[in-house]
Amino acid sequence: MPRISQKGESMPQSPIRKLVPYAEMAYKKGKTVYHLNIGQPDIKTPEVALDAVKINSLDILAYTRSEGSDEYRQKIADYYGKHDIHVTKEDIIVTTGGSEALLFAFGSIMDIDDEIIIPEPFYANYNGFSTASGVNIVPVISKIEDNFALPPIEEFEKLITPKTKAILICNPGNPTGYLYSKDEIKKLAQIVKKHDLFLIADEVYREFTYDGVTHYSIMQEEDLKDHAIMIDSVSKRYSMCGARIGCLVSRNKQVISTALKFAQARLSPPTLAQIASEAALQTPQSYFDEVITEYVERRNLLIAELEKIDGVKVAKPKGAFYCIVELPVKNADDFAQWLLESFDVNGETVMVAPAAGFYSSPNVGLNQIRIAYVLQKESLIKAVNILKEALKIYKD
Amino acid sequence: MPRISQKGESMPQSPIRKLVPYAEMAYKKGKTVYHLNIGQPDIKTPEVALDAVKINSLDILAYTRSEGSDEYRQKIADYYGKHDIHVTKEDIIVTTGGSEALLFAFGSIMDIDDEIIIPEPFYANYNGFSTASGVNIVPVISKIEDNFALPPIEEFEKLITPKTKAILICNPGNPTGYLYSKDEIKKLAQIVKKHDLFLIADEVYREFTYDGVTHYSIMQEEDLKDHAIMIDSVSKRYSMCGARIGCLVSRNKQVISTALKFAQARLSPPTLAQIASEAALQTPQSYFDEVITEYVERRNLLIAELEKIDGVKVAKPKGAFYCIVELPVKNADDFAQWLLESFDVNGETVMVAPAAGFYSSPNVGLNQIRIAYVLQKESLIKAVNILKEALKIYKD
Repeated sequence: MPRISQKGESMPQSPIRKLVPYAEMAYKKGKTVYHLNIGQPDIKTPEVALDAVKINSLDILAYTRSEGSDEYRQKIADYYGKHDIHVTKEDIIVTTGGSEALLFAFGSIMDIDDEIIIPEPFYANYNGFSTASGVNIVPVISKIEDNFALPPIEEFEKLITPKTKAILICNPGNPTGYLYSKDEIKKLAQIVKKHDLFLIADEVYREFTYDGVTHYSIMQEEDLKDHAIMIDSVSKRYSMCGARIGCLVSRNKQVISTALKFAQARLSPPTLAQIASEAALQTPQSYFDEVITEYVERRNLLIAELEKIDGVKVAKPKGAFYCIVELPVKNADDFAQWLLESFDVNGETVMVAPAAGFYSSPNVGLNQIRIAYVLQKESLIKAVNILKEALKIYKD
Repeated sequence: MPRISQKGESMPQSPIRKLVPYAEMAYKKGKTVYHLNIGQPDIKTPEVALDAVKINSLDILAYTRSEGSDEYRQKIADYYGKHDIHVTKEDIIVTTGGSEALLFAFGSIMDIDDEIIIPEPFYANYNGFSTASGVNIVPVISKIEDNFALPPIEEFEKLITPKTKAILICNPGNPTGYLYSKDEIKKLAQIVKKHDLFLIADEVYREFTYDGVTHYSIMQEEDLKDHAIMIDSVSKRYSMCGARIGCLVSRNKQVISTALKFAQARLSPPTLAQIASEAALQTPQSYFDEVITEYVERRNLLIAELEKIDGVKVAKPKGAFYCIVELPVKNADDFAQWLLESFDVNGETVMVAPAAGFYSSPNVGLNQIRIAYVLQKESLIKAVNILKEALKIYKD
């Protein structure tokens, strides 16, 4: 029997993959499971986006240009302009989700065994994209005590080698909910310029910032013209994760012309989803106001309820819809499994994402979980109460 | 300024990329350009597929499972059953086009610098997927004199090294239109078993076979259970290239579980396009009968007209909708550019794909072009006439 590749063998699994069979067993036993483990929002997709697909008049569902349709890219550029990000449609390549934008960025700027520095905990799939691209993640630890703020810039300096090609941040952060300040972005700008690196920012949660703080994009740093690569996606912004439309944005023309070659090899991003995404740009501000209000209420509620539990430490998120929670347990993986396998409150339990999978360093974050507040408030209250009751009796 | 990667630099361009600016110049001059260069069919997408999207009732455009929805995978398995390919939904991973299926296959079975043997001329984007995956294509030349039949199996034997992991075929072939016989598939089956390799078959043109010959899939070879990986797509079958839905099919459970890890990293294939693709499976046989009749008429017409031209040699295609044509010119690349730049018949000219880009060996196929017969018959006649007139006066 022919063998699969070492690359394939070392492709990481999702942090919750091990828990899935236990969740399925819980369903079979008739348990209700509150899912705090996933990034699929329960927010409705704007009607204007869904309607655009329903009234489309295509009779051939054809390829679009590999870089995305001209009309759509022009409209994205206009949208960025409103966020003080000044780019043209030539700086934009439409991709199949933010995932593909990351793969194109990695492929365009890194060769085998090159290194990319990422503050951890980070979005777990960065591991998968690195393995698929044959490059290495070099983590720099950010701390729950600091709400996962940018680690001291000296910590980055220490890790830079001739193989370092880029620093990658997610802002606002999944899984941390941390929003980098303008000052922090400027520090990153300085170090990438000093060492001639790329700065990649995954800004898919741009709209989701709270407490009156505004998002500061790496694209607003004029000096970073040749260094900055922004990753974006419609998935979270418009609650249309299933569209699979994202984009790669850079003013570095070499990066764009190189990423375009990867885009041409796969021909075209999805056409129907581009129709939906183009229409989604007409979503009224009231939609976002309502969504932000909802997330802020959920976050406040979640944090308040979690802080009532003995021994629990929470990093207060300023953006996105995740937070990292430290639990009074030794191993959150075992605890998460036990919640599904052996615990319930009146037939209800909860599924959480163990946070160790969001760290690249071994044996870090073992007592942490990531909570996605993508549930209605009543469900969130019930879910946190289940956690509270569980922690009273759990022994590890 | 930070540098792009060597990988990015060596990503190949599309064979027609150099011609695009000349086509744009031709448009500007007001010329009509008949496009024989592209694989975007002019055939209408089945209404049942387009309608399914229009009547969908989703209010959240959410992720599907990473491997594709259960319902859709079950229906694909049923569809294969009707083509004497017996697989279950567990053998199928839904991908973003056949392109992503190829990337997942390459990643799952090959490491850096591993080798894959492909009969050339081959679909040019195999080059891009190889470069992106860091693996090497080892070509084995098939000949226009043989209609691009399978090269003698000894030619494959000669090329097998410890780094060889797979043989890849496209059946029916883009760009050759050649349909491998059962006997040829059995020869390939034997050699991959002998050397413990994978056999990957890109069978996206399965429905497009002519002259009463039926397609024989590598999946019909029972003995190839652990060796066979089939790549498929809805793009050509239902003329829905813009859906970006394909799949990877294998009975090798390790291949599937490995490819699934790549699929999980990118979360989900496009949801709207899965709705269209699932509905497309209800397309009545009459649709295919009409389409096949149309393609056969086009092919017969095209070949007949081409054979009237002095010095032109044509490989008669038995499937797909391409053929390779040898022209009485030294360099088809220059000729194709000249057609756009300097030639017209009553303000009309033609764009063709120079075939050198479909070969991996240097300096092969320089006098060949690929023609896609994706135009109406009247346009095809005009286009071939333009070629004929052009060849009368072209000097290289």
